[in-house]
Amino acid sequence: MAFSFTLIKKDSPTGARLGRLVTAHGEVETPAFMPVGTAGSVKAISPRDLEEIGCQMILANTYHLYLRPGVEVIRELGGLHRFTGWSRSILTDSGGYQVFSLGALRKITEEGVHFQSHLDGSSHLLTPERVVQIQEQLGSDIAMVLDECIPHPESREYVRASTLRTARWAERSLKARIKGDQALFGIIQGGMYEDLRLECAREMIPMPFDGFAVGGLGVGEGESTLHTVGAFAVGLLPEDRPRYLMGVGRPEDLIFAVRSGYDLFDCVLPTRNARNGSLFTSTGKINIRRAEYASDPRPADESCECYCCRHFSRAYLRHLHQAGEILAAYLLTLHNLAFYHRLMERLRRAIREDRFQELNTEFRSQNSELGRDGSPDF
Amino acid sequence: MAFSFTLIKKDSPTGARLGRLVTAHGEVETPAFMPVGTAGSVKAISPRDLEEIGCQMILANTYHLYLRPGVEVIRELGGLHRFTGWSRSILTDSGGYQVFSLGALRKITEEGVHFQSHLDGSSHLLTPERVVQIQEQLGSDIAMVLDECIPHPESREYVRASTLRTARWAERSLKARIKGDQALFGIIQGGMYEDLRLECAREMIPMPFDGFAVGGLGVGEGESTLHTVGAFAVGLLPEDRPRYLMGVGRPEDLIFAVRSGYDLFDCVLPTRNARNGSLFTSTGKINIRRAEYASDPRPADESCECYCCRHFSRAYLRHLHQAGEILAAYLLTLHNLAFYHRLMERLRRAIREDRFQELNTEFRSQNSELGRDGSPDF
Repeated sequence: MAFSFTLIKKDSPTGARLGRLVTAHGEVETPAFMPVGTAGSVKAISPRDLEEIGCQMILANTYHLYLRPGVEVIRELGGLHRFTGWSRSILTDSGGYQVFSLGALRKITEEGVHFQSHLDGSSHLLTPERVVQIQEQLGSDIAMVLDECIPHPESREYVRASTLRTARWAERSLKARIKGDQALFGIIQGGMYEDLRLECAREMIPMPFDGFAVGGLGVGEGESTLHTVGAFAVGLLPEDRPRYLMGVGRPEDLIFAVRSGYDLFDCVLPTRNARNGSLFTSTGKINIRRAEYASDPRPADESCECYCCRHFSRAYLRHLHQAGEILAAYLLTLHNLAFYHRLMERLRRAIREDRFQELNTEFRSQNSELGRDGSPDF
Repeated sequence: MAFSFTLIKKDSPTGARLGRLVTAHGEVETPAFMPVGTAGSVKAISPRDLEEIGCQMILANTYHLYLRPGVEVIRELGGLHRFTGWSRSILTDSGGYQVFSLGALRKITEEGVHFQSHLDGSSHLLTPERVVQIQEQLGSDIAMVLDECIPHPESREYVRASTLRTARWAERSLKARIKGDQALFGIIQGGMYEDLRLECAREMIPMPFDGFAVGGLGVGEGESTLHTVGAFAVGLLPEDRPRYLMGVGRPEDLIFAVRSGYDLFDCVLPTRNARNGSLFTSTGKINIRRAEYASDPRPADESCECYCCRHFSRAYLRHLHQAGEILAAYLLTLHNLAFYHRLMERLRRAIREDRFQELNTEFRSQNSELGRDGSPDF
C-alpha cells in the first residue's frame, strides 16, 4: 500500500495538526489546499505553474471526466497523471456532488443514482461500486466514496435517511476496491444535525478507510453554522487518519478549519474568483474591475512574490480584464492560488514553530480589514 | 540614436538576408517573426512564455491601446514595456490598418483620418503627426508611419491617389519626431500595381527612415499575387535598412518572403489559429477538434520541443479544447508560436551556414504534405 499518513505534530492550545501524506505520486505536507481541476485542468493555468506556487495535490472531478473525455480514453492514455501532465498527487471526488446538483435530472435509489448528462442528456447509473471502479481506472491517488451531498435546509427525516444510505454505500465502496495503491476516503454526512453527524460517524469510523472527509458543508448554511458543525464533526474523526473538509472555502474558513483539526481542503473560490477579477490580498479582497485601479502602479498584493505580483501592476491587470484578455484569467488565477498556498505554508510553519495561536490572532486582526470592497463572499 | 541595423550576410543564390537589429531594448536577429500583442498582450500567453520560445520582438497595436487603456495611462505607468512586463523590443503599428478596417465609421482627408471608436462610438482624429506622438508616448522601439492600407481589389485611380497621400503623410511623420531613441519606419503602398509601388518607393526611399515596410499585402489578393508583388516591392528597398513585410503570413509565405529579402514579419495566424484549435506541425496543419485525435497519445508535433509538445498528448489538447478550457488556448498558442520561432531560427541558421537553398527545397517537398486536413488557409 503506497498510501500513508503521519501526524507529525499537534498544536496544544488548538487542534491544529501538522502532518504528511505519502501517495504513489509523492508527499503532501498537511494542512494542504487542493486547487480544483474540474475537467482535468485547473482552469487557466498549467501544471508547471501549479508546481511553481508549491501545489502538492489537485482535485479532479470524476463526474466531469467520466462524461468527457470518458474513463476509457484516460485509462488508455495511461491514467489521469499521464493524461493531464500533472505528476504530483491527485484526489478525485466521487461525482456525488455534481450528480446531486442536477436536480430533476437525477433519481436516487438504494442501488445508486440515475442521472442524465448535462452535456448530451444521455442516461447513466452511478453506483458506489462503479464509482470506485471509475476512480481506479482514472488512477487518482485518493478516491472518495459515493455519497449524497444533502442540500440545505433539509428535514431531519430526509437527512437521517440519506445519511444512513451514504453509510451503507460506504461499506459497499470498500468491498468494491481492487487496486492497492489508491487510498479511499469515507465521507461523514448528517447535515446540520450534530446527532446525525455522530450517528454517521459511529457507522463509518470503524470501517477501514484511509481517511475521512466531512461533506455537506459550505452549502449555504452560513459561517456560524459552518464553523459550529465543522468543529463538531472533526471531533468525531480518528486522530491517526487524514481529515478532509470538502468544498471549503474562504481564507478565514481555512484558518478556522485548520485550528479545528482538519488537514485537507479544496474549493473553487480562488480560481473562480480570479476569472471574475476578484483577488485575494494580504490586506483584503479587491476587485480589479474597479475604476480606482485604472492607473494603480502597485502589484495585486505588495507582500506577494508570485510571477503576477513581481511583474504586473493593478493597472495592467485591470486593463487585461476589461479587454477580455485570456492573460487576465491566467495571471489572476496564478496569484489567487499563490495566495492560498502561501497561507497554508504559513499555517504549517506556525504549527511547526508553536506559533499557531499567535498567527491566528494576527489573521483575526487583519480580518477586520477584509472584504473592504463590500463583496459578499469574503 | 539607439537603433541600428547591420546586414550580416546575404545568401548569394537567393536574396535571403541575415541581419541584426539593435533597439533600446536589445538585439533582434533577423529574419524575425513578431507575434501580435493587440491590446498589450500576445493573446493567451505571458511574457515569460514568449521569452522561453525565443521571441525577440512583439508587435502592439496603437489603435487598440490608444482607445483602451489610453496613452496617458501607459505613459504614466512608465511606457509600454513597464506596463506590459515585456522587456524586449516592441514595434507599434500606426493604427492605420485597424482604422481603415472600420469602413463606414471612418473618413479620410488630407489632414488624417476621422473615425469612431468601435468600443464606445466616440469620435477621434488621427493625423500622421498625432500617430508619431502617440507611439513616442507609448515608448515602443520601432514606430510605423500612418498609412492607408488599401483594400483589394481597388481601382488604379484610387490606389494612386491613396498611395501618394500615404507618401505625403510619411514626410509629415518624419517632421513630427521628437524622440531620438525610437526608430521610425516608412510604409510602401501601391496596391497590386507594380508601377505604383515603384512610384511610391521613389517618393519615400530618399526619406531618412530607419527601415521600410511593404504594406497592403495579405489582404485577399491570393498567394500568387502576394508573392509576385511582394518580391517586386522588396527589390525597391535599400539594402542597408531593415525590410518589413506587414501582416504576412503563413509559414510558406515567410519562407518565400525571406528568400525574397525581407527581414521582419508579423501575423495573427499562429495565435488566432491556436484559439480555433488549429496547429502548425512539421508535417502540416492539423485541427485538434477532429475526432481522430480523441485518443491520440502523440504530441501536437513530434519534432517540437516546446512545453506543450514535451508534456501533453493530442488527446488531452483535444479534450481541453472540447471542454472550452482556457488551458487549450494557452498550450496551442505556445506551440504555434514555438513553431514559428523555430522556423525563423532554422531560416537564419541556413543563411548563416550557406544552406538556404537546400532548406528551401526541403520545405517545398514537405509542403506537398501540408494542409492535409483540407483547411483553406494553409
